[in-house]
Amino acid sequence: MAHIDLGVDENEFPGVRGLMKYRPVTGKPMMELAETLLRGPLSLPMADRELIAAYVSGLNECTFCCSAHSAFAAALLDEGMSLVDQVRADLDSAPVSARLRALLHIAGAVQRSGREVTPELVATARAEGATDEEIHDTVLIAAAFCMVNRYVDGLGTFAPSDPKYYDEAARRVIDAGYRNMV
Amino acid sequence: MAHIDLGVDENEFPGVRGLMKYRPVTGKPMMELAETLLRGPLSLPMADRELIAAYVSGLNECTFCCSAHSAFAAALLDEGMSLVDQVRADLDSAPVSARLRALLHIAGAVQRSGREVTPELVATARAEGATDEEIHDTVLIAAAFCMVNRYVDGLGTFAPSDPKYYDEAARRVIDAGYRNMV
Repeated sequence: MAHIDLGVDENEFPGVRGLMKYRPVTGKPMMELAETLLRGPLSLPMADRELIAAYVSGLNECTFCCSAHSAFAAALLDEGMSLVDQVRADLDSAPVSARLRALLHIAGAVQRSGREVTPELVATARAEGATDEEIHDTVLIAAAFCMVNRYVDGLGTFAPSDPKYYDEAARRVIDAGYRNMV
Repeated sequence: MAHIDLGVDENEFPGVRGLMKYRPVTGKPMMELAETLLRGPLSLPMADRELIAAYVSGLNECTFCCSAHSAFAAALLDEGMSLVDQVRADLDSAPVSARLRALLHIAGAVQRSGREVTPELVATARAEGATDEEIHDTVLIAAAFCMVNRYVDGLGTFAPSDPKYYDEAARRVIDAGYRNMV
């Protein structure tokens, strides 16, 4: 049970969903930001953005967000959950492009601290073909999940253990986006 | 100089301001969230919210955000910058209410990890008179600065060293809010 009474059935509205129901005044701009970063008109493929979200959430040990965005990434990737699992288990040996690997290394640095993003990490991403906008968007998506993970766990929300919950959530988000959560 | 070419004079648009100019598509929802959390219709006094922002930004060693939100908090507090400095130097001896101290301890836990917020920290804040909504808003403001700090430093933006810059920024934000930055 969450640290505060969210006034909802947490089995039905776990994780960030209960928080959106509890406090729509902050939920609305949160979900506008999520919609822009994960589904808005940026050049990074949506699958890559969800993979960044899952990867950072895993590093932050946020069960709800990592399970949810892993399912969302898997639903968008041809290789499905096996690729998500490989990225999370060992980024350096995972079969992703050198460009995406370099961006995920930047995301991993952001998870530790903004100050961990070095000119070398940025130069590597650029050498592998990432644009400045993609480097920017990677940093911001990684940073945003350092917020959402802390929000979800800082209020002690419930995370379902059944993978079916996250598969159904993936269908909902892919069909209707993040805005419908508020 | 930032890790990527922001296309602006960073002396004129340092820190998050250059990032807002560079990427308005993400800047707009970011500043809507900042406006809601720091100036929107929440029950925490605006000075307390800016103090939470300054405190967390200091823990994250984000010079730009810590200098800016310290100046914003100081401009809103009767005690001015000396109280901000005392809170940042030693929260337990700083002359703030027991309620605000308990909320700042929650914010400090969020800075480390969402999983560091314990039922005990929440119970203490509640015993000192904090409402559930104020506990929620504290967690979210602290989490949001874990995003903004990583965004500002992850892209290596410039932070002015002259306190005058931040005093002028405080006047601008107090007069016109965060939305006008995009």
